[in-house]
Amino acid sequence: MTVSYTLEVANARFGGFSRLLFRWKGSIYRLLYKELLVFCGVYLFFSVFYRFMLTSKQQDLFERIALYCDQFTNTNFIPVLFVLGFYVTLAFNRWWGQYTSFPLPDNLMMVVSGNVHGADERGRLLRRTLMRYANLSSVLILRSISTRVHKRFPTLEHIVEAGFMTTHELKHFESLHSDFNKYWMPLTWFSNLASKAREEGRVRDDIALRLLMDELNNYRAKCSLLFHYDWISIPLVYTQVVTIAVYSFFAFCVIGRQFLNPEKGYKNHNLDLYVPVFTLMQFFFYTGWLKVGELIINPFGEDDDDFETNQLIDRNIQVSMLAVDDMYQNLAPIVKDKHWA
Amino acid sequence: MTVSYTLEVANARFGGFSRLLFRWKGSIYRLLYKELLVFCGVYLFFSVFYRFMLTSKQQDLFERIALYCDQFTNTNFIPVLFVLGFYVTLAFNRWWGQYTSFPLPDNLMMVVSGNVHGADERGRLLRRTLMRYANLSSVLILRSISTRVHKRFPTLEHIVEAGFMTTHELKHFESLHSDFNKYWMPLTWFSNLASKAREEGRVRDDIALRLLMDELNNYRAKCSLLFHYDWISIPLVYTQVVTIAVYSFFAFCVIGRQFLNPEKGYKNHNLDLYVPVFTLMQFFFYTGWLKVGELIINPFGEDDDDFETNQLIDRNIQVSMLAVDDMYQNLAPIVKDKHWA
Amino acid sequence: MTVSYTLEVANARFGGFSRLLFRWKGSIYRLLYKELLVFCGVYLFFSVFYRFMLTSKQQDLFERIALYCDQFTNTNFIPVLFVLGFYVTLAFNRWWGQYTSFPLPDNLMMVVSGNVHGADERGRLLRRTLMRYANLSSVLILRSISTRVHKRFPTLEHIVEAGFMTTHELKHFESLHSDFNKYWMPLTWFSNLASKAREEGRVRDDIALRLLMDELNNYRAKCSLLFHYDWISIPLVYTQVVTIAVYSFFAFCVIGRQFLNPEKGYKNHNLDLYVPVFTLMQFFFYTGWLKVGELIINPFGEDDDDFETNQLIDRNIQVSMLAVDDMYQNLAPIVKDKHWA
Amino acid sequence: MTVSYTLEVANARFGGFSRLLFRWKGSIYRLLYKELLVFCGVYLFFSVFYRFMLTSKQQDLFERIALYCDQFTNTNFIPVLFVLGFYVTLAFNRWWGQYTSFPLPDNLMMVVSGNVHGADERGRLLRRTLMRYANLSSVLILRSISTRVHKRFPTLEHIVEAGFMTTHELKHFESLHSDFNKYWMPLTWFSNLASKAREEGRVRDDIALRLLMDELNNYRAKCSLLFHYDWISIPLVYTQVVTIAVYSFFAFCVIGRQFLNPEKGYKNHNLDLYVPVFTLMQFFFYTGWLKVGELIINPFGEDDDDFETNQLIDRNIQVSMLAVDDMYQNLAPIVKDKHWA
Amino acid sequence: MTVSYTLEVANARFGGFSRLLFRWKGSIYRLLYKELLVFCGVYLFFSVFYRFMLTSKQQDLFERIALYCDQFTNTNFIPVLFVLGFYVTLAFNRWWGQYTSFPLPDNLMMVVSGNVHGADERGRLLRRTLMRYANLSSVLILRSISTRVHKRFPTLEHIVEAGFMTTHELKHFESLHSDFNKYWMPLTWFSNLASKAREEGRVRDDIALRLLMDELNNYRAKCSLLFHYDWISIPLVYTQVVTIAVYSFFAFCVIGRQFLNPEKGYKNHNLDLYVPVFTLMQFFFYTGWLKVGELIINPFGEDDDDFETNQLIDRNIQVSMLAVDDMYQNLAPIVKDKHWA
Repeated sequence: MTVSYTLEVANARFGGFSRLLFRWKGSIYRLLYKELLVFCGVYLFFSVFYRFMLTSKQQDLFERIALYCDQFTNTNFIPVLFVLGFYVTLAFNRWWGQYTSFPLPDNLMMVVSGNVHGADERGRLLRRTLMRYANLSSVLILRSISTRVHKRFPTLEHIVEAGFMTTHELKHFESLHSDFNKYWMPLTWFSNLASKAREEGRVRDDIALRLLMDELNNYRAKCSLLFHYDWISIPLVYTQVVTIAVYSFFAFCVIGRQFLNPEKGYKNHNLDLYVPVFTLMQFFFYTGWLKVGELIINPFGEDDDDFETNQLIDRNIQVSMLAVDDMYQNLAPIVKDKHWA
Repeated sequence: MTVSYTLEVANARFGGFSRLLFRWKGSIYRLLYKELLVFCGVYLFFSVFYRFMLTSKQQDLFERIALYCDQFTNTNFIPVLFVLGFYVTLAFNRWWGQYTSFPLPDNLMMVVSGNVHGADERGRLLRRTLMRYANLSSVLILRSISTRVHKRFPTLEHIVEAGFMTTHELKHFESLHSDFNKYWMPLTWFSNLASKAREEGRVRDDIALRLLMDELNNYRAKCSLLFHYDWISIPLVYTQVVTIAVYSFFAFCVIGRQFLNPEKGYKNHNLDLYVPVFTLMQFFFYTGWLKVGELIINPFGEDDDDFETNQLIDRNIQVSMLAVDDMYQNLAPIVKDKHWA
Repeated sequence: MTVSYTLEVANARFGGFSRLLFRWKGSIYRLLYKELLVFCGVYLFFSVFYRFMLTSKQQDLFERIALYCDQFTNTNFIPVLFVLGFYVTLAFNRWWGQYTSFPLPDNLMMVVSGNVHGADERGRLLRRTLMRYANLSSVLILRSISTRVHKRFPTLEHIVEAGFMTTHELKHFESLHSDFNKYWMPLTWFSNLASKAREEGRVRDDIALRLLMDELNNYRAKCSLLFHYDWISIPLVYTQVVTIAVYSFFAFCVIGRQFLNPEKGYKNHNLDLYVPVFTLMQFFFYTGWLKVGELIINPFGEDDDDFETNQLIDRNIQVSMLAVDDMYQNLAPIVKDKHWA
Repeated sequence: MTVSYTLEVANARFGGFSRLLFRWKGSIYRLLYKELLVFCGVYLFFSVFYRFMLTSKQQDLFERIALYCDQFTNTNFIPVLFVLGFYVTLAFNRWWGQYTSFPLPDNLMMVVSGNVHGADERGRLLRRTLMRYANLSSVLILRSISTRVHKRFPTLEHIVEAGFMTTHELKHFESLHSDFNKYWMPLTWFSNLASKAREEGRVRDDIALRLLMDELNNYRAKCSLLFHYDWISIPLVYTQVVTIAVYSFFAFCVIGRQFLNPEKGYKNHNLDLYVPVFTLMQFFFYTGWLKVGELIINPFGEDDDDFETNQLIDRNIQVSMLAVDDMYQNLAPIVKDKHWA
Repeated sequence: MTVSYTLEVANARFGGFSRLLFRWKGSIYRLLYKELLVFCGVYLFFSVFYRFMLTSKQQDLFERIALYCDQFTNTNFIPVLFVLGFYVTLAFNRWWGQYTSFPLPDNLMMVVSGNVHGADERGRLLRRTLMRYANLSSVLILRSISTRVHKRFPTLEHIVEAGFMTTHELKHFESLHSDFNKYWMPLTWFSNLASKAREEGRVRDDIALRLLMDELNNYRAKCSLLFHYDWISIPLVYTQVVTIAVYSFFAFCVIGRQFLNPEKGYKNHNLDLYVPVFTLMQFFFYTGWLKVGELIINPFGEDDDDFETNQLIDRNIQVSMLAVDDMYQNLAPIVKDKHWA
């Protein structure tokens, strides 16, 4: 479920974002705790290994290796942060781009409601069918990119059952063969049906037809963009480079950040805290940022913070039908408003 | 209240931005002073604790821990700054995006004024009602995202009372059931009423109707975008990562930046100033930047610098009515201008 | 005056940007020299103070403080640069956004010239009045945001005098009361007058009227955006954070960068140059960057590099009248061109 | 082939991106292994050279040089990372810009299907020809920028053979001489043919013709943008600067990162690991990021991750013909939907 | 000449960008070699000066100064890189923005070809003249911003001679006085001529006229944007700050990076290489990046990598005439395509 929290921080009060830290749903803790446990386990293993299982001479070697690794994690050998910053910013822009490409039928339904006329059955049929086509198209596209929607509609029959398609249409849809995603077909039906409605006089003039066509094209463009966002990912190589950077950093930390015997007087090793507080902090921080990337690189999954695609599909069809059917020419009486002078 | 200050710094004079430092309203001081007091309190506690309550041996341990913590805050273990930079830039872009999505009725009213004709009562009624619908829609959306507007209109009755809606319309509005925000309904009424006005000949041609529809769709798109900005926040995880980074940094500072006994000759501890000037500076600086983030992540709250939503609502309805009613075909005589040749 | 210099560096020749360094108008030297003098004065004061006015013991204390401060300015305690980079980039984007929002009447005048017909007086009157309204609107908006324009037109009477408004129109304008900026009123007049011209047949068809309305809306949108850029500044808090960062940095420099007695053997204090070359360099550099921010945060002031609003206003009205009056249907004879085959 | 992987990481599960590390196709390993081998070879050569081929005195010199070089690679002499970050971000934006400029005929075909009428042969001929012209144009442009498409259509005859062009049209195309890319010609044919269809009454009204023209212009704009992306590259100088930075960094590493004799007690040279783990890590990381740049600077090549231009061409023509021919006015019967009330 | 090289690096092969290093045209070497020679000369001078012309005591002083300067260039006193990164990114965005604002007549010519009818002389005359006006306008604007175009057309007579303008038109053009750039005049002629063509029935309907007007306005907007890009440069102050940063950095390098006598045992001065390899590398790198900025800040100059304005002007007029004259209603016979079923 999308996690909205801006209302909670509407005002920049004392404490500010601190209240956001005590949430589990959609939180960094929930995303990260497994990785943290694994990291702690491995760290613990090496700690025990170093303290109890090595001969004095082996310990010396281990300490030398640890110091060497530590040098790597302290200086800027691998600038994890920097590359994460660039990567997450890119991913964030794509994430928002995908959201704003989500096809919403609101413009289309307003136009259909105002321009496809007739309160009789034929009129209702035309308006409802047009909107159904538009919604069907977005369901088809979302099914191919969202795991949630795909679970809800594993086959086309499920779509028919949910009322987005009639069996006639399904047959028609399947009779046309194409090697590629056929999400655009219901929109072509829309275009043809609108053309027919013009011939029947249900659409009263050419300009209204044009308006329908324009909004249809806007709608289609969004479906198409969504499809392409899914198809063309951030180049795999980039994601791999970032992942390797973060993982290797912590691989070296597991050894390099061991507390060495304070008595041996290694530099910056005067204190044996057993728990590597700073390293855990860093783990939390860097891996947390990488998780942000994982979260937003595909917002159509089932994470807490992913888009509510199924809910949006329901909203869209409900609202479409309301607007073109129940609300068609169904106006409250037009009376003078309160401030009429 | 929005804090405008650019006029004061219109010219890059001597001193420049310095005059902006002496303001309380909307200032960093106002936002930050509570946090600063808490930080100072905690710092003071540890300072007293270290100086007067510990035995000599405990002091030694404390010093070792302090040095360890200091190491963490001095080097780049947690690059607070960098992550703040990226985060605030993202938040800033959303902030401005929200502002530019604010639905202003100016285009719509100009179009209604020029294309819905008739100086008689029916004409006035049509124009006023159309603009009222548009304004009503934005009130409905703002009510759901702005705490200020919600306080002003806690129930729909308050909206009726304020004259944005008639009681007929309220009944109509409530009779249509939808599980989702119904802000778009008055815009569907607009669409249907415009269609009716065309039938009555008040809108004289199809092209004028299309113009009304186009501007309506632009207006709706802005309402919708505003709604989605509110629904889809910056992923919670990202905000948490940033907050934890800043908070943990200063948690370590509270101990690591204590002035240790200069006589013990610790490196960089030659001076006991009691007041950690630099650390306070840093606190001011980093927490201040985080506060910028808090401030702009939801510009519809009640901060000094948040958008003046209520004022804008008043402006919009006033200006709408002026434009479509008082100013309708109410032109000054057209005379030759001064430079007529 | 806007300082254009790209022509000088059109070619990346030897020396390149170096020739830009020897300019006074709009230069960094002109903007900065006062601040530099103040900084040098304060530095000199402390220098004299340290060298001649302190006892040997006091000097020791001063040196300890200086070393402490220096530590602050050398390491990354306050990362002035980074925050400046982010801030100036934001400000730059707004700056260019404001420039591209400047309402230019070119599209409108071309459309008026081609679609409002009649070479007789009435035709000329209509075309000139329409363009005058558009220009008047931009003058009203610029008057409220630009100090230069406000100086030129301190009252509405000055606008009348300059020929942008007739006295009839002024009376009309003032008779309509609104608590908010009324820059949009002349544009409503435009809309109504265009509508009238259509009735009179001066605008020959509905599509031409629509074209006028569309360009009007584009024009209005720019006026409105300009107004909002002015109203909604970069949050004050952000500007304050940046300013404090830069100022405190140099406050510490004034003490921390003093040349300490080389004989005392402090680290990196082997040379007494009297003039802190590097610190001045840094001052020049960081304060210069901050000045860039000051310069561009409000491009409607009176800096050398601010937009030439008054000149643009003159250009717009002159060009508008030329296009719709002198050039109306005033074509050179259409003859075969040189390459006619 | 484009490598889509977002579905695999739809959910931010445990392990997250780690599963992406074990892929060969489109992976960083595949892109980098040759460079890595060369680097290892050269490093090995110097290693053997230093250990076995030098006299003791020569070794001393080598060590001094190595220490000198190491200093260069450790500190920030050449900030490879930073410049890579800026460069790759620029390249990434261009890359996505190119993708979104890819001319897809979907809008055009929907408009042709709904507005060019007649189920008879002439109607079909018109619709098919119009769409063929559009597709032909994109093939012509892609041929000039994509190596893959150029291999598929080495001559114009191949395009004729593939059915995008008739021999008549080829003759026509070649008879018109221009020194520049002639990809726009089929679109002029489209414009003229649409105009003819209007005369024949196949396009029923002027508004439908305008719609065809508008979509044609959108389509052409994309073709044109693609052409210009190809023509105007990121300035060569920028690419050279980045490449030199990365290459020189590793040139110095090859000597500076040699393990020096631990017995000589050079600082940070206490351990002889033979394999320079960190340096390889860095190589992997920095060169990997540069490879990302190489990959995306021209997405029309034959890399694993480049755009599937040939596949898209096939899709476009297939889908175009389906939409305007098979699907023309070919609607499933319009029946009441499931939720009809 | 624009330097296109992406085809060469279409595939991310072994070696990748390395092949781009061996080019002279448009290369960093060509841009930089003079500066490099000067820098080497100055460095050499100080080197000789220090080694041979100073007494032992003067050498001591020189060494102290050199060490002082070196400290400045090694640490982050002036973060050249960072400020270059921000500056070049800004400049790059403007550069691409300018390119995409280049007025191309393609849309206009397609619209003229499809909507201004008549194969007779009058028809041809109208179409050719309209396109000539559009091209003339872009020549006028480019003449004022591009040094290349200005060299080609030093006076308006040259434009007449090249066939972009008739002598009648020149007289007309000069008779209209304006203090500002008059590039928009031919576009007003276009608008008026199109209006006349509508009256004559050459443009058959109002919608076609509107299409002409819309495309005209798009074209004009691009001309205007280009003009403003030229007028409003990146603020001079910003460019100066960046230039001073880079230049002062290398001014200090010239002394600070001298090889001091290794026998004196200064830290990091164990080796006398005579040639300061790293410093040259840095010079190459930083100055190279600055040169990128110089190159792209004005893409209308005569650099190797600047836009081919003259070539584009030729292309535009040639292509315009082809499209509206030779290709007017000149279609290949419409026959069934290969895949007709």
